[in-house]
Amino acid sequence: MKLSLNTATVKRATLAEAARLCAENGVDGIGPWRDVVAAAGGARAARELLDGYGLTVTSLCRGGFVTTGSPESIEDNRRAVDEAAELGTAELVLVVGGLPERSRDLPGARANVARALELLVPYARQRGVRLAIEPLHPMFCADRAVVSTLGQALDLAEPFAPDEVGVVVDTYHVWWDPELFPQVARAAGRISAYQVCDWVVPLPADMLLGRGHVGDGHIAFAPITAAVAAAGYTGYVEVEIFNQEIWDTDPALTVRTMVDRHRVHIAAS
Amino acid sequence: MKLSLNTATVKRATLAEAARLCAENGVDGIGPWRDVVAAAGGARAARELLDGYGLTVTSLCRGGFVTTGSPESIEDNRRAVDEAAELGTAELVLVVGGLPERSRDLPGARANVARALELLVPYARQRGVRLAIEPLHPMFCADRAVVSTLGQALDLAEPFAPDEVGVVVDTYHVWWDPELFPQVARAAGRISAYQVCDWVVPLPADMLLGRGHVGDGHIAFAPITAAVAAAGYTGYVEVEIFNQEIWDTDPALTVRTMVDRHRVHIAAS
Repeated sequence: MKLSLNTATVKRATLAEAARLCAENGVDGIGPWRDVVAAAGGARAARELLDGYGLTVTSLCRGGFVTTGSPESIEDNRRAVDEAAELGTAELVLVVGGLPERSRDLPGARANVARALELLVPYARQRGVRLAIEPLHPMFCADRAVVSTLGQALDLAEPFAPDEVGVVVDTYHVWWDPELFPQVARAAGRISAYQVCDWVVPLPADMLLGRGHVGDGHIAFAPITAAVAAAGYTGYVEVEIFNQEIWDTDPALTVRTMVDRHRVHIAAS
Repeated sequence: MKLSLNTATVKRATLAEAARLCAENGVDGIGPWRDVVAAAGGARAARELLDGYGLTVTSLCRGGFVTTGSPESIEDNRRAVDEAAELGTAELVLVVGGLPERSRDLPGARANVARALELLVPYARQRGVRLAIEPLHPMFCADRAVVSTLGQALDLAEPFAPDEVGVVVDTYHVWWDPELFPQVARAAGRISAYQVCDWVVPLPADMLLGRGHVGDGHIAFAPITAAVAAAGYTGYVEVEIFNQEIWDTDPALTVRTMVDRHRVHIAAS
């Protein structure tokens, strides 16, 4: 599997800097975030920039946050679809959103996700974009994503064709799941992205930022990577790490570390 | 469902203080931790003390931590079984343990849990004690419990009779699970304890301590309580809250709050 840099890993780099670091380090995929694309002058300008470096856009992060059921949330996701299409990627990552303010209605929030997919799929299909549901670790259920397992994401995807709704396999979010391997097999044809980072303990105060470089924590990457490949996934491995210490590091060093770790823990496995 | 105070909720109270607060507030169940029992002079002395207040011991916390597979861990669990029997409770709560130091072998750690049950069940059965597997929230998978879901706990329990191996349903650990309701139904006959506390956001720096009084967070208690009752559970509701702010509160106030919240959110539902 080829390597892709998710721009969240080098948070303080501009898109141009991230693209240059990819090119210099033999990384030929990049997964940008929408704010980085906007800062680079929008999707069209970003695509020209990335094309100049010969980079493949492996996904766009991120749409989602549809659990309130508001028309605004749907509208924002239509814009995200447009941006993905302009960037030339077929994969729009969706982080579906947590419980609305003060809400305890988890089934209601989950139903809103299903409804949002119904509303968004026809629009996305016309533009050649797949909606990629990303299950987030259950510790984010209240405030970030009411979709917590790969099985649940696949249940939501099932009413749609495999090229309409996919799923993201992110090691950090799913490594603990006793159903992981059967669900990865079930995801055949629907894996939109394979994202990696490691689970380090103890988690820091801000648990969103507790992710480590591949190899620094408790996740066994070889069996997960093998399962993703066995499910027919031929795309890139996208490295997405949220970690303040890594963000404070020179992005050039971070990209070199990422390439090293990929060689040892993913490519060799 | 009747109310029980897990002593972890009033961490700075002695067993005698906790028992007196129960009696004064009409709480007739108590779930002590082993360190509190030891500080009260051991299981026999603790039982006399609790009998004096007419309290039912609803469970003993906790055995477990068997993922290394060491003989010492089995020996410690035999002692915990003895303590549960002496205390007069049939339910020994097991927190199974996380990954051993530096380990990435999640299947191996889980296999050690299954082996530990095989070793411990005959000993516990002779003493009238059920081993109650507590699935912990997946965020504790690396460092505290490689059993993360009720379904997984039930898979481990299945080779044994319902009065040999049970499961704990703790709202904090399982509320997010899309499989929660079918798995609670499947747990009929095996529910050893129903523990409650709420999920509050944002989680504090020490995520072990992010639990709130029932009603202060995002968990809908009524449907979970109804499902536990529908599964035939006739035991107590044990309130177990790890929260530094609550620990710093006068235990008398904490117990009164617990009784109020029980009336509003559990008993009335």
